[in-house]
Amino acid sequence: MGRLIARRPVLRLSPDGERTRPDQLAVEEPLEIRVRGRALAVTMRTPGHDVELAHGFLLTEGVIEGVADVRDARYCDSLDDEGRNTYNVLDVGLAEGVPEPETGVERNFYTTSSCGVCGKASLDAVRLRSKHSPAGDPVRVPVEVLAAMPDALRRRQQVFDRTGGLHAAGLFAADGTLLVVREDVGRHNAVDKVLGWALLQGRIPALGTVLVVSGRASFELVQKAVMAGVPMLAAVSAPSSLAADLADESGLTLAGFVRGGSMNVYTRSERIVTR
Amino acid sequence: MGRLIARRPVLRLSPDGERTRPDQLAVEEPLEIRVRGRALAVTMRTPGHDVELAHGFLLTEGVIEGVADVRDARYCDSLDDEGRNTYNVLDVGLAEGVPEPETGVERNFYTTSSCGVCGKASLDAVRLRSKHSPAGDPVRVPVEVLAAMPDALRRRQQVFDRTGGLHAAGLFAADGTLLVVREDVGRHNAVDKVLGWALLQGRIPALGTVLVVSGRASFELVQKAVMAGVPMLAAVSAPSSLAADLADESGLTLAGFVRGGSMNVYTRSERIVTR
Repeated sequence: MGRLIARRPVLRLSPDGERTRPDQLAVEEPLEIRVRGRALAVTMRTPGHDVELAHGFLLTEGVIEGVADVRDARYCDSLDDEGRNTYNVLDVGLAEGVPEPETGVERNFYTTSSCGVCGKASLDAVRLRSKHSPAGDPVRVPVEVLAAMPDALRRRQQVFDRTGGLHAAGLFAADGTLLVVREDVGRHNAVDKVLGWALLQGRIPALGTVLVVSGRASFELVQKAVMAGVPMLAAVSAPSSLAADLADESGLTLAGFVRGGSMNVYTRSERIVTR
Repeated sequence: MGRLIARRPVLRLSPDGERTRPDQLAVEEPLEIRVRGRALAVTMRTPGHDVELAHGFLLTEGVIEGVADVRDARYCDSLDDEGRNTYNVLDVGLAEGVPEPETGVERNFYTTSSCGVCGKASLDAVRLRSKHSPAGDPVRVPVEVLAAMPDALRRRQQVFDRTGGLHAAGLFAADGTLLVVREDVGRHNAVDKVLGWALLQGRIPALGTVLVVSGRASFELVQKAVMAGVPMLAAVSAPSSLAADLADESGLTLAGFVRGGSMNVYTRSERIVTR
């Protein structure tokens, strides 16, 4: 876990007085994702599982649809001041015939001079782009199994326990089996790592699974779930309006405030079995 | 607050049974920021204070240094399917002589073919770009005043109280006076709105102030504080390694876990007066 945690001296001030001690911080470093040598994105992430992160990012951005679309992924020879590889630039080679991704700022949004960006246009664009719609997935999850998932995720958050500084995402089977957990300073990165893992395991579309996230459910996280064919997203905290809208249009089951044995279900509640 | 909160039906499942009721969700909508008619960025934000958001974004990205660099900011005539303005595209006109911003993915990072991106290069790039260094700010804040700021921020989080779905940022004077609070689904947007407010008030560089955020302190948030000349950042939760590194290099006081009367101080602790 060397690159996941950094030590820094800290001055602790409390009503009991003050003392200097070492503290453990979650590591944050930039990762540049290149496609065929060209920079596509820079994300601030916790190092580790970078190949999964790149696969998940490319899947959920609509650049690739399956593992066969990727030829190879390797770190560039990017060196720091002391001549050591930074391991912060990952170049992904696409298989023959896979088109180049767009790189403009509007690439995630449907924009026209007449409409500009709006929630509706964003929803349309995402719905059209996903090759792995979860709408028809007949999966059923008992409510008590779903309610127990956030605690299972929490028990596996090793770095959070030491730093308090990481988001987590986990993929579960419908019977409650935890398939994979990833932690990251960015919650979108944690989700990309989980979905990249699924892609590399040949599990995309991820039918019959539940994606659990430690924080809130934004439009972006729902979008990622839909792009991977995940039928159910459970968040420990609140969803946004556009997250609920996109879940509704995409046929994703969205649950929020999943804690203490209770939850709010915003869409497609028939997949959660209360009896 | 019409556009800040959306109503959605929700199925509440709990050990006491199930019931359907209306729920209030924080609104999330895309905002496209254009400069001289050209798209620079799309951010998912909570509508409202968009002009502040655009100003803060341009300030903290190094496009503008003061309010005189902006000629005007206005919503485009972007219409939705029913012909209504979406108010989701804001075009900013720069004053004569202000150079066009770069729009590539590497614009926030110093990248070369030899080094690629690394934390060190990122730090260098930010340190060089900021025209409003907080390093020399002699401000002093009593520890008990600083410790009380998160609660003061929390008491002003009106939308969070109703949705549980928003991040907050607040700017305080050194004596504890709360100057401004903004809420947003994106914590970077909440900070941009606060700093954009300061810019429009003629308060940049924001010397003698404390920026308080409701969550964690990432590299990005420290970068924004430094670009605005804010000398102190206080986060309710954990900082990342690169946040602490950048604060150290920039002369910013960084405090984390500011809660329950205690805090961890990572850098420039002499600005916090314990006696």
